[in-house]
Amino acid sequence: MARLGILGGGQLGKMMAQKAKKMGFYVTVLDPTPEAPAAQVSDKQIIGDFHDAEKIRELVEQSDVTTYDLEHVNTKALKRLLKEGHRIYPSPDLLETIQDKFKQKEMLARLGAPLPKFRKVKTTEELSSFGFPVVQKACKGGYDGRGVVVLKSQEDVEKALPGETYIEEFVEFEKELAVIVARGINGERKVYPVVEMVFDERANICDLVIAPARIDKNLAEEAQKIAINIAEKLEIVGVLAVEMFLTKDKRVLVNELAPRPHNSGHYTIEACATCQFEQHVRAIAGLPLGSTKLLSPAVMINLLGEEGFEGPPLIEGLEEALSISGLSFHFYGKKITKPFRKMGHVTIVDDDLEKAIETVEKVKKFLKIKAEGKA
Amino acid sequence: MARLGILGGGQLGKMMAQKAKKMGFYVTVLDPTPEAPAAQVSDKQIIGDFHDAEKIRELVEQSDVTTYDLEHVNTKALKRLLKEGHRIYPSPDLLETIQDKFKQKEMLARLGAPLPKFRKVKTTEELSSFGFPVVQKACKGGYDGRGVVVLKSQEDVEKALPGETYIEEFVEFEKELAVIVARGINGERKVYPVVEMVFDERANICDLVIAPARIDKNLAEEAQKIAINIAEKLEIVGVLAVEMFLTKDKRVLVNELAPRPHNSGHYTIEACATCQFEQHVRAIAGLPLGSTKLLSPAVMINLLGEEGFEGPPLIEGLEEALSISGLSFHFYGKKITKPFRKMGHVTIVDDDLEKAIETVEKVKKFLKIKAEGKA
Repeated sequence: MARLGILGGGQLGKMMAQKAKKMGFYVTVLDPTPEAPAAQVSDKQIIGDFHDAEKIRELVEQSDVTTYDLEHVNTKALKRLLKEGHRIYPSPDLLETIQDKFKQKEMLARLGAPLPKFRKVKTTEELSSFGFPVVQKACKGGYDGRGVVVLKSQEDVEKALPGETYIEEFVEFEKELAVIVARGINGERKVYPVVEMVFDERANICDLVIAPARIDKNLAEEAQKIAINIAEKLEIVGVLAVEMFLTKDKRVLVNELAPRPHNSGHYTIEACATCQFEQHVRAIAGLPLGSTKLLSPAVMINLLGEEGFEGPPLIEGLEEALSISGLSFHFYGKKITKPFRKMGHVTIVDDDLEKAIETVEKVKKFLKIKAEGKA
Repeated sequence: MARLGILGGGQLGKMMAQKAKKMGFYVTVLDPTPEAPAAQVSDKQIIGDFHDAEKIRELVEQSDVTTYDLEHVNTKALKRLLKEGHRIYPSPDLLETIQDKFKQKEMLARLGAPLPKFRKVKTTEELSSFGFPVVQKACKGGYDGRGVVVLKSQEDVEKALPGETYIEEFVEFEKELAVIVARGINGERKVYPVVEMVFDERANICDLVIAPARIDKNLAEEAQKIAINIAEKLEIVGVLAVEMFLTKDKRVLVNELAPRPHNSGHYTIEACATCQFEQHVRAIAGLPLGSTKLLSPAVMINLLGEEGFEGPPLIEGLEEALSISGLSFHFYGKKITKPFRKMGHVTIVDDDLEKAIETVEKVKKFLKIKAEGKA
């Protein structure tokens, strides 16, 4: 079988590596942290920084195909390797555009995706161009809730983000949705069910995913069509996650993209015929895509490090959690927990989606990732 | 999380390790072959023989709980470590009994399990005690079809197995069945659906599993009860596979046991809420057991090394296979293929079980494990 290289050894790389190993790939991971989650389940780790051109070359040259588990990598080095004929998916050019959220928005606009109004801001005055409230976002470096603020009124302008930013119309949304599309090298394409993403308000990190989304069939089809259109126009190879808003007046607007397996698709491991991680590997390896059929409704809960704790993780409430029928527990193997760090997740499959959703609050009460140390 | 030790690094160890890693365990594998399948997906490998008492001690002392992916191990060393207070499941005493198929049969008789007639043979004359045809089995060392012969008539007596053997009534069976039961340290118990096992006649190796078995509900319940009874009386910790015959006159008879994840349960990875490998790890780690609910009917096909080929494996027909909707491909990562060696398997999930069964013949025609070298 082929050799797969993964730039980044976090949980996405880990789950990707596990599926690649299932299919017999030889997997190498590049990550600065020894025994990074993905490295624990792979054949080999190269210890090095995501921006170290030499280490990236080492990874790519040892692999038949290379991919990533994060966007913030050295795209210049990757572009050079691509030109030399190495297989790297998704394309470093796309990654570069996506790394800059404003450029990403401009690209989405060109593709005809429905979007909230947005504009670059260069002066403090421009922050109020759309009135208030307004969302301000950093062009670069935002991740898991960082790099986003809501300015409620003129007074909030002093809390505005520094650096290169843009503003976006504040959307009154009913739900946040996500759709994952997979596209193969030869253009074959599969789409996963629309899901609901629910965010933890304290840290603005997705902490719950509900599959399938409880929305009208027409709206679900519309959301899938929007995602498919983006994937096709971008000629993406691999999986592409499209995060969206369902507005209170029933419009579907695109929020942002991730050209890789995504938190909103973790439930596919237990609930779909082919999960997003295997699908991504199949796509970039030039193999046929698998069925995205939903075998059971499911909810997925992120296990974030508890506030107030930092150090080697301690899991509280695991026995109670595993006593819940249809619950699958994932723990990523990160050596240190920090407040709001993604440490693991659980998926609950249940024919009765509402029952599964009711279970969520219970699980969130007793299942906690703490540590001996204080944050 | 806890540290799991696995004695044996084959495909069962690999799939067990992948589920343990999913849940955050630190996994160490003992196997004589560097880069054994299980070692490729684990944190650490100890290179050593299954009978090397010192290496076994090293594994057990580094692990909070130890288990195996095969039965033919040094039980004496394990018994000593157990006495010292180490956690080892299933019990080495049980393993010792099971290693000797005649002792296993005697044990099953004591437990009240329905069995074909059997008796030890000491002289050539005794081979005909049950008339012909009769099945002769080696007491020790049989595995994957080795150590079993059918003597059709008095003339076949010259082909009889040497060494310590026993004979068993030749059962006219309609189907071969298997049931997997899981039992926790505190006695919690779960049972998987009854499945059909279909054997490759050339090598007498299971090559197809059909889940659920197409038999009467009453017979399925009877088979499950028999398996549960054995698991409870043996106070097994972990999963126990019970292979059975469904005779032409509709009796369910026990054939043999395996106190570990079993080939007949590979389909549970894709088709059940909790697979046999995760279940085994949960059980021996003292965690609550998961739901055994069947999410979809499924068939599992073993990929055996083609006759006539030996060497680094080459997969033929993979693209065609992956084009089949609901097909999941497993390749174990063994460095060398040999005739009839278990190299991988595929599982097909389909709401329509008969359709999935029809697909099997197609898949078997084009999906082949060959090699550059000749056997």
